[in-house]
Amino acid sequence: MIGIFDSGFGGLTMVREWLKISPEYDVLFLGDSARTPYGNRSITTITEFTEQGVLSLFAQGAKVVLIACNTASSDALRYLQSKYPEKKILGVLVPAVEEALEKTRFGRIGIIGTRGTIASNNYTQEIQKRISKFYNPSEKRAVKEPVITSVSAPLLVPLIEEGWIKKPETRMILKKYLFPLKHAHIDTLILACTHYPFLEQEFQKKMGKQCTIINSGAAQARKFRDYLQQHPEIEKNLSKKGLRQFYTTDSPDRFRELGSVFLGKKIGKHSIEKLEIE
Amino acid sequence: MIGIFDSGFGGLTMVREWLKISPEYDVLFLGDSARTPYGNRSITTITEFTEQGVLSLFAQGAKVVLIACNTASSDALRYLQSKYPEKKILGVLVPAVEEALEKTRFGRIGIIGTRGTIASNNYTQEIQKRISKFYNPSEKRAVKEPVITSVSAPLLVPLIEEGWIKKPETRMILKKYLFPLKHAHIDTLILACTHYPFLEQEFQKKMGKQCTIINSGAAQARKFRDYLQQHPEIEKNLSKKGLRQFYTTDSPDRFRELGSVFLGKKIGKHSIEKLEIE
Repeated sequence: MIGIFDSGFGGLTMVREWLKISPEYDVLFLGDSARTPYGNRSITTITEFTEQGVLSLFAQGAKVVLIACNTASSDALRYLQSKYPEKKILGVLVPAVEEALEKTRFGRIGIIGTRGTIASNNYTQEIQKRISKFYNPSEKRAVKEPVITSVSAPLLVPLIEEGWIKKPETRMILKKYLFPLKHAHIDTLILACTHYPFLEQEFQKKMGKQCTIINSGAAQARKFRDYLQQHPEIEKNLSKKGLRQFYTTDSPDRFRELGSVFLGKKIGKHSIEKLEIE
Repeated sequence: MIGIFDSGFGGLTMVREWLKISPEYDVLFLGDSARTPYGNRSITTITEFTEQGVLSLFAQGAKVVLIACNTASSDALRYLQSKYPEKKILGVLVPAVEEALEKTRFGRIGIIGTRGTIASNNYTQEIQKRISKFYNPSEKRAVKEPVITSVSAPLLVPLIEEGWIKKPETRMILKKYLFPLKHAHIDTLILACTHYPFLEQEFQKKMGKQCTIINSGAAQARKFRDYLQQHPEIEKNLSKKGLRQFYTTDSPDRFRELGSVFLGKKIGKHSIEKLEIE
């Protein structure tokens, strides 16, 4: 089965994208909703919590685990990949970065995310590592040196969780956060947090039509489909009965309520279970 | 020693009030900063986390434990008091309610707090339970039936943690939350969250001079001093060397940084320790 780990509910926006394009695969989702959000915690704690969550998914039968949370991917993925080289653990950063590099016209890339994601600087490093792969001097839009501007926007997650999508206060706060990105004339913006797709239209409106918005969860879903095509030895071991099982570390009732909003459809009572992951 | 438990950093505003009036007592503080905030979690999880935290403080040598967090007090205190009748565990609700009932002129009381605190309805119940004690028909301001209006304000904690105290967005959001309280013509407002004292001036300004603002942490500190005077058998067992020891479940560096803001003075590096409380 495919395991998808998230720090809480936001990762369900990635699951939503995955189910749109590949509904046949069985999916195990684990949201650490008892300890969400990770965004403001120390790297040590984020790593510890992520390790517990990812190992729990393998213990439940996952063959491959995707980390949907940007903060957990930024702070814990490399450590987990080197600690467990025999396990398949994939994050959200590389897919989002690759999609941004495929789409950018002038290499002026913006990143917006939680404090933990931005402070790790991993998005910037991944862009710089990969830019040469996308550099082709014969192309008109050839980019050799990217210009990267990153901004942390810690208030967007609580505003979205409150459902304040259309409120004037949210628009004002978003405008404030986007000011340095507009000022840097970015042509591509990575939404480096699973919550932000709820504000995608607002981002597009504020940044203008010329700016390409990258939904990191959608990029992760698409790139994972490509990955499975390139790795039939992994793909053939994945069960395909269209099953979905949701685990939460907090109450299943609460998960069902908020989770259904993030997934975009009702989650059945019997497909949610509480899991102790300490 | 006196143990003070909080879900994160906010409880340090209560410690600040306590040290102002009783600096001689030794204090052990534990902030569950790795799992903060509690405000949006289920009662089961809040109770479990609070129990772990309170027991850890007793294990570290506390003779009495004060729960500074309003959410933890609302959702877990009664359960812990009945499960551990031999232990002294005190919350923040009763002190805040008593102070509100002492000060209200017309019994029109407002409560503002996190979703968890307001949903539990415990503040309202505590007010109703105690109103008769304060009812004296010979008094001009005699109140027989309180009129209670409660409002949950989930965005205030993140705004305060971001330091957005003076921003226009915060004023707009506060105005929105206070609208039903103004409309109900309350004469006394309980700030039922340890973070809110940072906005006390804004609350006063928006509610007007006629409204008495109750800082729940300050009430808890004052009432605990009274409690010790009435219970010399407990008071005599408390050490009085002016020691302060801070425990956190996340990184000590992060605790030092944010904690110093909430305490209102620098916390020394050597007085912070990480504690595993699972």
